[in-house]
Amino acid sequence: MKKTVGIIGGTGNIGEGLARRICLGEKFDVIIGSRESEKACVAADGVVCALNERKCTATTCSGTTNADVCCADVIIISLPFERVQSTIESIGKSVFENKIVISLINPMIRNPKEKYFLPDAPAEGSAALAIQKMLPASTKLIAAFNNVAANKWMELDEALDYSVAVCGDDAEAKKTVMELVGSVSKLKPLDAGPLAMTKVVEGITPLVITIAMRNGLKDVGVYFK
Amino acid sequence: MKKTVGIIGGTGNIGEGLARRICLGEKFDVIIGSRESEKACVAADGVVCALNERKCTATTCSGTTNADVCCADVIIISLPFERVQSTIESIGKSVFENKIVISLINPMIRNPKEKYFLPDAPAEGSAALAIQKMLPASTKLIAAFNNVAANKWMELDEALDYSVAVCGDDAEAKKTVMELVGSVSKLKPLDAGPLAMTKVVEGITPLVITIAMRNGLKDVGVYFK
Repeated sequence: MKKTVGIIGGTGNIGEGLARRICLGEKFDVIIGSRESEKACVAADGVVCALNERKCTATTCSGTTNADVCCADVIIISLPFERVQSTIESIGKSVFENKIVISLINPMIRNPKEKYFLPDAPAEGSAALAIQKMLPASTKLIAAFNNVAANKWMELDEALDYSVAVCGDDAEAKKTVMELVGSVSKLKPLDAGPLAMTKVVEGITPLVITIAMRNGLKDVGVYFK
Repeated sequence: MKKTVGIIGGTGNIGEGLARRICLGEKFDVIIGSRESEKACVAADGVVCALNERKCTATTCSGTTNADVCCADVIIISLPFERVQSTIESIGKSVFENKIVISLINPMIRNPKEKYFLPDAPAEGSAALAIQKMLPASTKLIAAFNNVAANKWMELDEALDYSVAVCGDDAEAKKTVMELVGSVSKLKPLDAGPLAMTKVVEGITPLVITIAMRNGLKDVGVYFK
């Protein structure tokens, strides 16, 4: 049986693109979560259409509430950082016991007028390190997908060929997440060390946005090679 | 007349490689600095030999004390972070008034046994932000060259084709430093925004070292494109 990926905040821009890309990889089934399950079902129908158009029959996508996606083998939190704490509380912290949870969140200070974005890390040093504190000690929190350009997820005809730094402190969970990353388009998963490395990795997104704005480049990605 | 680049700590591993690479670019002359000027002269002789071997006659390299390299148009501080404060004090802070100064320093916690390096930023958020405080307000501090693999500088037969994030708050000084970066091998200078972006950029070096160690890769570099 295929492993399932549940996406909390799966009707957001990144969440919906992620759902499509993961299903198209045909290695993982996806459950889209939202505050309202109807909204999640509509998004899932969109994914199913995209799969049918591309004759991908190996995977399925369904929609439900943010709480109910947590039955999945891997849970992705695709929310603005400000909404993570309240969402975890409303779902109930204990639901996350022993779960593999992925954070792709990069808190940023946006200053497009002065042509720069900067990281806006919480006191813990990164969003991932702060989220780890919000979850049970048994949760295996892994950071991945942080630096994929948000607007690229939905452009299904374009391959994603970026390097993806995967950070976390549980080797087994990291392996599963690296398999997930490797199933998506042409993304290249790289073990980037402990969760503490998110202090760097989350900052790379504001860095690449700044580089794009200041050097007249479009859709800058990061490659480690 | 060519602009000159003075390298404080120019007899270190990176400093000497930098001197060679900059001279080979034939756009800037180089003055190598060291605590002992004899040591700097020996290093400069080495650079001149390398230039002669490659029939590069457009640039020159000489050696002197760390204090005396500060007459150069652009000063690179190529020292371990721990030695910067005392070196600036012994040279005299006022020497740096209105100067363009480059930091390429990345403070790191090294844990090769556990296969990771992590950034070890001072309270200011980065080495560059801390060094800015050690210098006069009129000094134009720019960060550049941070993520070029240290062992690559001296391998002159290998091209350096990495992206180089250039961070700083003075547009004119940044332009000069981008010209310098662009004169070295195939390095690609990119305006990476304000000096505060060094919080991210300095961390990329421990990140790429960690990625190399954990993924069986050699000489990992970073590319923004």
